[in-house]
Amino acid sequence: MTEFFNGIAPIAYEGPDSPNPLAFRHYNPDEIVMGKRMEDHLRFAIAYWHSFAWEGNDPFGGQTFVRPWHPQDRMATARTKADAAFEMFDILGQPYFCWHDADIRPEGDSFAESLKNFEEIIAYFEEKMSIRKVKLLWGTANMFSHRRWMSGASTNPDPDVFAYSAATVKTCMDATMKLGGENYVLWGGREGYETLLNTDMGRELDHMGRFLNMVVDYKHKIGFKGTILVEPKPQEPSKHQYDHDAATCYGFLQKYGLESEVKLNLEQGHAILAGHSFEHEIATAAALGVLGSIDMNRNDYQSGWDTDQFPNNVPEVALAYYHILKDGGFTTGGTNFDAKLRRQSLDAEDLIAAHVGGMDICARGLKAAAAMIEDGGLEDALKERYAGWDSPEAQAMLNSDFDTIFEKVNSGAINPAPKSGRQEMLENYVNRFV
Amino acid sequence: MTEFFNGIAPIAYEGPDSPNPLAFRHYNPDEIVMGKRMEDHLRFAIAYWHSFAWEGNDPFGGQTFVRPWHPQDRMATARTKADAAFEMFDILGQPYFCWHDADIRPEGDSFAESLKNFEEIIAYFEEKMSIRKVKLLWGTANMFSHRRWMSGASTNPDPDVFAYSAATVKTCMDATMKLGGENYVLWGGREGYETLLNTDMGRELDHMGRFLNMVVDYKHKIGFKGTILVEPKPQEPSKHQYDHDAATCYGFLQKYGLESEVKLNLEQGHAILAGHSFEHEIATAAALGVLGSIDMNRNDYQSGWDTDQFPNNVPEVALAYYHILKDGGFTTGGTNFDAKLRRQSLDAEDLIAAHVGGMDICARGLKAAAAMIEDGGLEDALKERYAGWDSPEAQAMLNSDFDTIFEKVNSGAINPAPKSGRQEMLENYVNRFV
Amino acid sequence: MTEFFNGIAPIAYEGPDSPNPLAFRHYNPDEIVMGKRMEDHLRFAIAYWHSFAWEGNDPFGGQTFVRPWHPQDRMATARTKADAAFEMFDILGQPYFCWHDADIRPEGDSFAESLKNFEEIIAYFEEKMSIRKVKLLWGTANMFSHRRWMSGASTNPDPDVFAYSAATVKTCMDATMKLGGENYVLWGGREGYETLLNTDMGRELDHMGRFLNMVVDYKHKIGFKGTILVEPKPQEPSKHQYDHDAATCYGFLQKYGLESEVKLNLEQGHAILAGHSFEHEIATAAALGVLGSIDMNRNDYQSGWDTDQFPNNVPEVALAYYHILKDGGFTTGGTNFDAKLRRQSLDAEDLIAAHVGGMDICARGLKAAAAMIEDGGLEDALKERYAGWDSPEAQAMLNSDFDTIFEKVNSGAINPAPKSGRQEMLENYVNRFV
Amino acid sequence: MTEFFNGIAPIAYEGPDSPNPLAFRHYNPDEIVMGKRMEDHLRFAIAYWHSFAWEGNDPFGGQTFVRPWHPQDRMATARTKADAAFEMFDILGQPYFCWHDADIRPEGDSFAESLKNFEEIIAYFEEKMSIRKVKLLWGTANMFSHRRWMSGASTNPDPDVFAYSAATVKTCMDATMKLGGENYVLWGGREGYETLLNTDMGRELDHMGRFLNMVVDYKHKIGFKGTILVEPKPQEPSKHQYDHDAATCYGFLQKYGLESEVKLNLEQGHAILAGHSFEHEIATAAALGVLGSIDMNRNDYQSGWDTDQFPNNVPEVALAYYHILKDGGFTTGGTNFDAKLRRQSLDAEDLIAAHVGGMDICARGLKAAAAMIEDGGLEDALKERYAGWDSPEAQAMLNSDFDTIFEKVNSGAINPAPKSGRQEMLENYVNRFV
Ligand SMILES: [Co+2]
Ligand SMILES: [Co+2]
Ligand SMILES: [Co+2]
Ligand SMILES: [Co+2]
Ligand SMILES: [Co+2]
Ligand SMILES: [Co+2]
Ligand SMILES: [Co+2]
Ligand SMILES: [Co+2]
Repeated sequence: MTEFFNGIAPIAYEGPDSPNPLAFRHYNPDEIVMGKRMEDHLRFAIAYWHSFAWEGNDPFGGQTFVRPWHPQDRMATARTKADAAFEMFDILGQPYFCWHDADIRPEGDSFAESLKNFEEIIAYFEEKMSIRKVKLLWGTANMFSHRRWMSGASTNPDPDVFAYSAATVKTCMDATMKLGGENYVLWGGREGYETLLNTDMGRELDHMGRFLNMVVDYKHKIGFKGTILVEPKPQEPSKHQYDHDAATCYGFLQKYGLESEVKLNLEQGHAILAGHSFEHEIATAAALGVLGSIDMNRNDYQSGWDTDQFPNNVPEVALAYYHILKDGGFTTGGTNFDAKLRRQSLDAEDLIAAHVGGMDICARGLKAAAAMIEDGGLEDALKERYAGWDSPEAQAMLNSDFDTIFEKVNSGAINPAPKSGRQEMLENYVNRFV
Repeated sequence: MTEFFNGIAPIAYEGPDSPNPLAFRHYNPDEIVMGKRMEDHLRFAIAYWHSFAWEGNDPFGGQTFVRPWHPQDRMATARTKADAAFEMFDILGQPYFCWHDADIRPEGDSFAESLKNFEEIIAYFEEKMSIRKVKLLWGTANMFSHRRWMSGASTNPDPDVFAYSAATVKTCMDATMKLGGENYVLWGGREGYETLLNTDMGRELDHMGRFLNMVVDYKHKIGFKGTILVEPKPQEPSKHQYDHDAATCYGFLQKYGLESEVKLNLEQGHAILAGHSFEHEIATAAALGVLGSIDMNRNDYQSGWDTDQFPNNVPEVALAYYHILKDGGFTTGGTNFDAKLRRQSLDAEDLIAAHVGGMDICARGLKAAAAMIEDGGLEDALKERYAGWDSPEAQAMLNSDFDTIFEKVNSGAINPAPKSGRQEMLENYVNRFV
Repeated sequence: MTEFFNGIAPIAYEGPDSPNPLAFRHYNPDEIVMGKRMEDHLRFAIAYWHSFAWEGNDPFGGQTFVRPWHPQDRMATARTKADAAFEMFDILGQPYFCWHDADIRPEGDSFAESLKNFEEIIAYFEEKMSIRKVKLLWGTANMFSHRRWMSGASTNPDPDVFAYSAATVKTCMDATMKLGGENYVLWGGREGYETLLNTDMGRELDHMGRFLNMVVDYKHKIGFKGTILVEPKPQEPSKHQYDHDAATCYGFLQKYGLESEVKLNLEQGHAILAGHSFEHEIATAAALGVLGSIDMNRNDYQSGWDTDQFPNNVPEVALAYYHILKDGGFTTGGTNFDAKLRRQSLDAEDLIAAHVGGMDICARGLKAAAAMIEDGGLEDALKERYAGWDSPEAQAMLNSDFDTIFEKVNSGAINPAPKSGRQEMLENYVNRFV
Repeated sequence: MTEFFNGIAPIAYEGPDSPNPLAFRHYNPDEIVMGKRMEDHLRFAIAYWHSFAWEGNDPFGGQTFVRPWHPQDRMATARTKADAAFEMFDILGQPYFCWHDADIRPEGDSFAESLKNFEEIIAYFEEKMSIRKVKLLWGTANMFSHRRWMSGASTNPDPDVFAYSAATVKTCMDATMKLGGENYVLWGGREGYETLLNTDMGRELDHMGRFLNMVVDYKHKIGFKGTILVEPKPQEPSKHQYDHDAATCYGFLQKYGLESEVKLNLEQGHAILAGHSFEHEIATAAALGVLGSIDMNRNDYQSGWDTDQFPNNVPEVALAYYHILKDGGFTTGGTNFDAKLRRQSLDAEDLIAAHVGGMDICARGLKAAAAMIEDGGLEDALKERYAGWDSPEAQAMLNSDFDTIFEKVNSGAINPAPKSGRQEMLENYVNRFV
């Protein structure tokens, strides 16, 4: 017992009218939505990094949080941190969590020592998980914080860093498998460039493609059954990140023969930084067959960096889940809260309330999305709008050629009449559900 | 003679110290740069649309320009417009021009009538070109201005619009071939969506992929030897455009089997709107093997729409040409001024001066780029930075697997030492040339 | 009867469960909110320009709408347009409307002829208003569309344009007063610059300050009892607009001695373009004592231009009304829908549904805001957070000086202890109401 | 001697053709520009924080730099840091430097201990300055890094933090005066809000206004002859910063009666983040009479956070100095390099080269600006464009009223004829000088 969450009881569902800030008002794990338990739809995960490793620093200020597991550079406090984490999992009751290696273990003086630390904590996790239902949604390697990664991991100009990265990911994949993780994620925060002046982009892309192929090979070698996921982000900390957005990643996967082996982990904040809406990124990945999992958070629309705030806008979240449900819902993926407190939110209660609020927002979004799917209004409108394409004539035209089509158009047989796109009516429709 | 450019003599090269606003101070067509005439490097083209079809309208205001070829909805003024255009080509002496069908001919009451108008003007162009050296860099179809395209061209929910688009592109490809055009361009300003709520993205992408395959088939059928180019832009007028940026287009081309048939026409302003630098888009296309041609202009960095201004920043333009030269320079591509006057720049002299200034900026940029290539400083720095990868050991490692690499790293044999990226020194280096 | 809205009956309140797309589900004019009728809180107005004058053009395409009042360059169709407008007012039942002179009358060949046209339409409006309850929220002058304003109105380098602007505003103020308008608005779309290179900013600001003083003088001279409002926008169509945002306008008003004579008309879309949230602009104007009225719409968060869409996000709208209610609610101001259909929304039904949806969103936002005010949770949190400042000691310190304070701090008597800002808990609180 | 800069000799002016990366190619302190030494125009300052206190951290990674003065939390290394700083000043020969208290001294366990540390270092500086020509351009207080400031300094909801801030600024003003500093700067990085939900904006603004009045009172009390400067920035680290941009600050200064006591320190990067060009901010401050000093750097145009890079674009820098020279040039202000290395630029040589490059860029910009002023082309164009306003008739009109003007316009005597704004010709003109 860390006493950090002292006095905070497990969060219960109390219904929409509860004024209790530490109760679920909408997230009711066992409630059936479209024939499935809400928990099994949403598959919530807590991110170890933001909740337990981050100390409140920002680019203009240092640590604001004071935690029982500080300082984090020793094994004893790493265990205290794990104790606190699992206490929070008990309080929130969410089914999953996620980590980077660097979140959970102190860095050692050598690779081997870091690995030893890591494996000890993984064993400690295993023990804790054995008496709880909480599972690992995914593991990942932090290959951006230590100065060795300052110029990238697999795309580093120094082959030694590529090697160090390969060895690191191997150990993280091993640990993920050991803990029964359902996915393995790669986020390439420094796989990109600060300036094109010192960058050989073609060479770096080839190295990154080769690295990802090694990941896939290793997955098969060890028999990992989870999904390999890449998380797009356009920039920050780098000026340009190669995994820019869903469409860019898809082109990359194709180039290196990986589009059937790797899927995407999409984050709301990264979508915004790339100039897209979250539903755009989800719909794009779905259309391209690579939708895997989501990092749920929200980016401030007026801030040009990754704010990783907890989601709080139901209409937006509803559209995200609408596209996820249309794609068939999550399989190995889930809803990971890649979200952090504001650095002024100092208290344990803030950390719990933030997750409770986020889970409620997602529950409301999911229910609204399901209601729209069950009502069918959007899908009907879509069918009607594209109905012309369902005729045999249209399909024949589509499979013909320019000369054939030209003859018909030039003869005057075709003179298209614009029809209303009905955007406002569809927006009003959505507002009936959110 | 339209008298529009009355009194403006052909522009001559007068050298850097000339204070004459209507003289070239840097563009000297016959000057040899890296073994080739400057004109043959830059391959300047004038865009018919901005210089002759646009009337000065913006979203909050109507026509500001008063031109001898107004109103533009009749064949007689279309001919006057052509007269003026070729008079400007004579004044500027640039080797190429470009058009959309809708720039050069009035819309008819039917497809057939529009085509008749178009063909008459193409014949009129042919006549004019027969006595001049000016050539066609590329033709393209305007499939975004008329209300029939309001919901897209090849991605329209109405198959009749797809058909109308196919017939239109066929006629524009025919005309391009007839005039000896060296490329054919597609820009999909409304191939995208206003709202995902009424859009079937997967279906629309498939239609767009099919359409582009038809373009390529037709090219081969008629024996057109030019390059098919797609011009990326992230948005505007649509909320989202499928041809978002170079990397997105590359993914699209791969998905529809077109990456060896189609190249990209990259525009500075579109790069900026997509959150990239121009050199980023060029370097990306080069790395992916799809760099074709450029639309030179500049976007205001503080305006969130496509401002299509004339380029005026030598350091930026130099980096663009640096990456073009590194890729081997243009083959069928060129430097098209997709740039328009500010709507307050009412006079014929403004139109000439704007192009003179743009051509000079490009000439300075090209010379600086060539000097950097000849000096070799950037390339040397690159070679040194990646030198580690040239060793047989590094290549063996790259072709090995996670287990092999892990053994070596875990043994302590590898502990990467960060080296300076030298960004500021490289930036200073560039400033020696611009 | 224009027959344009044929078959669309006046919109009735049918309650939240109604699936009828042409019914109010939340806007119930007579419902009492915080002791006042909902209609009297919201004070909805319809904008003549977007609904009746705009033809669906965008920067890349022409007219998409086909209306009985096209073409708009003659008096007969101006009357048909007015008929349609008042028919829509009858259908929607909103209490107010707004216009620019150029929306309602064709431009004449001279100032005098334009004025004659204008006065005839104003008389036509008067007649229509005499048999209806609909009133004028505000009038304004369009001094940005015609080419004469291309370089600004009151800030034009040509004093003749200043004069033309003064005469124009005089006639619009006269007409506003004649129709019983409750405010007069100025939006300076071209009061700014395209390039600093040709701009004398100090001189232009002085001219604009002088002009606004003339407006205020004229108001007093004619005994207009309404409020003079300035509408901030940061840019577009100009690169920079002097009335950038609320804080900038406040500085301008102070500089020219107008801060007690002029208030602000704040638009959601303009707030977004200026890098602010809508509630920021409202809270800022309220804090500075210059909150007047709002232009309700929404800007697309991913589009860098003014999209003027209908509002559709309740959580955002609720925060806007929260700050308006905290400021005491509207007096002469109101909620003007400065919102337009998407250009693909061709039908009369789209126009009605868009307003119905917008009015419902505002009604939901208002009710949520009122509930938060009545519950008091946010205000209580604020009081608690700043409670330290209410002590006599704190006030004495605030009124002392550096030396006095230094003595106390340096003695060790003061060592501040950070307290949680509770942002997530407050965000969760808001989500109980929206 | 720290040996950190071992082997780097004082930088000499070697002329434009020198390939030496550690030579000035354009900055020649004694060269006369517009009758004044270049050094006296530019008044360069080095920023202690970026060059000596920052360790290479970014939001996703820790320290990359390894310096002899690390760790920085003790007095001995603070002295080593000062040694290195003055060695760099000797190498670069720039006339000024700048600091925050927290850059130069370790934080103590109490206010008094921090002050003791601070005063010891100030004395150490005094000693070093006594044998050198380098002077203090300005001092400032870091009231954003330590957790006590997490909710603001003068705008903190806790009056104890206001008090701590007042005491802190007093000591920094004392030290600035002691060292002969020519200005005192306030930057309010956390004077703003993270969320409006927990913020009383009106109250916070009043506190900030009161605080700034205390600063001015204290200045007069101690007889400090320098200028009080406020540095605008729109956001980051806060979501909103009250000192948003030049125009906002001007409104604030007026509201609290300070517009004749306080001037602005403008930063390129902050201008960009506020959606402005740097020359816009300078021209605005000049037009409002509050231009004080500049923080020269550059923001990446594609990154939405403050990148604080060294300037490297001559055309942009030239326009900045053009407006500074038009305003009469610096008096107490100067050109402070608020610029930091990229975190991959690890070497001492990078630090020197970055400043050399920046100083050269500024020198080129200054010379270009001076040449444009001496040539007079821009000023002549301006005079011609506004010439209409110089007539007695125009001035009489400006001082008349709406009725008088209306009579004249309505009579048909005035019908403005648009004239070209000549933007492109002016842009071309500028390109003759850069
Ligand atoms: Co994430
Ligand atoms: Co993120
Ligand atoms: Co283009
Ligand atoms: Co463009
Ligand atoms: Co408005
Ligand atoms: Co607007
Ligand atoms: Co600064
Ligand atoms: Co900065």
